[in-house]
Amino acid sequence: MEVPIVLHVERVEKLTKELSSQGLDALYLGPSTDAEYMAELVLFSDERVKGLMIASSGECFAMTPLLYEEEMRAVLGSSARFQIWADHEGFTNTFKAGCEALGLVGKKIAINDGVRAVDLIDMKSAVNAEYVNGAETLSPLRKRKDDDELARMRKASAIADAVMEGISKFIRRGMTEREIADKLLELYDENGAQGLSFSPIVASGPGGSMPHYTGCSRVLEDGDFVVIDTGCRYKGYCSDTTRTFAIGEPDEEMRKIYGVVLEAQKAGEAAVVRGATGQDVDRAARRVIEDAGYGRYFLNRLGHGVGIAIHEAPYIIEGNDVPLEPGNVFSVEPGIYIAGKYGVRIENLVAVRPDGTGEALNSFTRDLIVIND
Amino acid sequence: MEVPIVLHVERVEKLTKELSSQGLDALYLGPSTDAEYMAELVLFSDERVKGLMIASSGECFAMTPLLYEEEMRAVLGSSARFQIWADHEGFTNTFKAGCEALGLVGKKIAINDGVRAVDLIDMKSAVNAEYVNGAETLSPLRKRKDDDELARMRKASAIADAVMEGISKFIRRGMTEREIADKLLELYDENGAQGLSFSPIVASGPGGSMPHYTGCSRVLEDGDFVVIDTGCRYKGYCSDTTRTFAIGEPDEEMRKIYGVVLEAQKAGEAAVVRGATGQDVDRAARRVIEDAGYGRYFLNRLGHGVGIAIHEAPYIIEGNDVPLEPGNVFSVEPGIYIAGKYGVRIENLVAVRPDGTGEALNSFTRDLIVIND
Repeated sequence: MEVPIVLHVERVEKLTKELSSQGLDALYLGPSTDAEYMAELVLFSDERVKGLMIASSGECFAMTPLLYEEEMRAVLGSSARFQIWADHEGFTNTFKAGCEALGLVGKKIAINDGVRAVDLIDMKSAVNAEYVNGAETLSPLRKRKDDDELARMRKASAIADAVMEGISKFIRRGMTEREIADKLLELYDENGAQGLSFSPIVASGPGGSMPHYTGCSRVLEDGDFVVIDTGCRYKGYCSDTTRTFAIGEPDEEMRKIYGVVLEAQKAGEAAVVRGATGQDVDRAARRVIEDAGYGRYFLNRLGHGVGIAIHEAPYIIEGNDVPLEPGNVFSVEPGIYIAGKYGVRIENLVAVRPDGTGEALNSFTRDLIVIND
Repeated sequence: MEVPIVLHVERVEKLTKELSSQGLDALYLGPSTDAEYMAELVLFSDERVKGLMIASSGECFAMTPLLYEEEMRAVLGSSARFQIWADHEGFTNTFKAGCEALGLVGKKIAINDGVRAVDLIDMKSAVNAEYVNGAETLSPLRKRKDDDELARMRKASAIADAVMEGISKFIRRGMTEREIADKLLELYDENGAQGLSFSPIVASGPGGSMPHYTGCSRVLEDGDFVVIDTGCRYKGYCSDTTRTFAIGEPDEEMRKIYGVVLEAQKAGEAAVVRGATGQDVDRAARRVIEDAGYGRYFLNRLGHGVGIAIHEAPYIIEGNDVPLEPGNVFSVEPGIYIAGKYGVRIENLVAVRPDGTGEALNSFTRDLIVIND
């Protein structure tokens, strides 16, 4: 099997088997974490179409605009098969030539989630083939982290824990959300993070009820909950953790809600046992919240897989009846979100051990921290 | 015409005319600057499918996962037509219901560039319709900036000029690219930028030959060119400018190359005259570089439109024979890139005045600045 352009030869071998078992003739990867996973290829997604085609034969081509040829050759080596196009030509002719060289005309090609719909429309016009949804084609490989990947993820989570500890000592009433977000970036730098896995979410008061709140100007005041959801990268792999702090003494209802979310989070982690599915883990945590009467304030899934991508398989959600496997890493992040008032979320990453039990990658305390200064 | 959910009513009216003239029954917008343009709707692109369908009748629906319903209603108002889906359901049923309500089954629907190919594949399975490439459907509207948009862009460019002046006084030999990038962020904050239009590119020495270099650790030394390509946002609109500085006295070849790029940049700006096309402007600048014998070191297009998006119509490129129009704003950014040695690029934004001539939005000097400290 000739694998001219891809760095991770063993992953290409696994993929060709996976393609055959899924009845696919090729997988086409646009700019995406899939491309990073297969070839350490970090591509910039824009209107200049670029990507990597991997056929079930193991043959590949990399397509790139001329502008990025130098960068792509630096990663993939100069002996690789390249399909290059110039700005004034468009990509369709070179895409067609690449597909013809690999014998893919009329075949079944999976398209991953880094490809834009507008480009798929043009690809279909250029090359007659059956294009199918390949968003999860690589998931069977990616969701089983090997020891090296797990070591990177433990380190990324240890950094996030150190940052969470640092921020817990920094927060004071009267600060803006923005000041806290800026301090998080500083702490990540100090603790050796290699970039962020996403922009930190610092959501105080009513903002906390929006799980992906993007404001920054609110000033922290007594009676607030502050949700801090954050993570970094280490050697390409992500961390993701959330803690909720109270500004000043919380009232009885706030203490109760915090306790329910904490119990739900622990129940979710404890449900990671041999043979458990994503749905089982979701239900275990959700039941705690429902039994406490807050079911309608927990609208989203319990968690998502994490790896090179911040959201990937396996999803911890009703309907996912696939048993968890050793090497899976995912978030367990129940929350109670009361519109107009506040939100509480507690999140750890959990890895599945060879015996099927869960290893929490985060160790910073989940107990309620009350900021009284 | 009922326009229940979209803020920019006059833009919806223009779009419905545009759809009719393009023979389209609807335009579907995924998370994208198109959605910002039509509805101030800043959507986060991830595996949870969300977007905005606008039919040629003027009717619309917004599709969102339950998780984002609160945020979307805050923007679009609670009387809007929403198609909501829960995490465990998937989006296809509610997408279908929305299309049926708007009478779009079997019709011709343009898909914009914010939609993922994998989701288009699922949309096609759910709703039988002709899906066509709508990447440029909104371009006829977006590329004609009105006075309010032009005012925002002038301000964004003025901030970028102030930052470029500040950085020109800050750079010293021995600094890392990262130190310069960090200082840029500080300067943007001080000068009132509202976010960046892209992460600053600081590319010294050989890195300068990669137009989208992403390194940061190289130390500036004598004999370097340093390319700084940067821009910010102001009220949603982008700036984008590049200057190239010399560290220590440049040699004769470097001075010559800088001079050629400067002459080409000026020729490009001067070619913005009544009736000129994007191709004309590209050729005017390219000819200068070709005549000087460096044609093979200028591989990319001369420029791209800028607005809410950092890359949008009109493209200043061979093959674009559409006359420029008043209100167009685009970059004029010739460069000479010599692999393994260095690169030089000089970039201004140019707006087209009502009389067809060009107004440079940047005014920081284009003359070579030599850093001797």
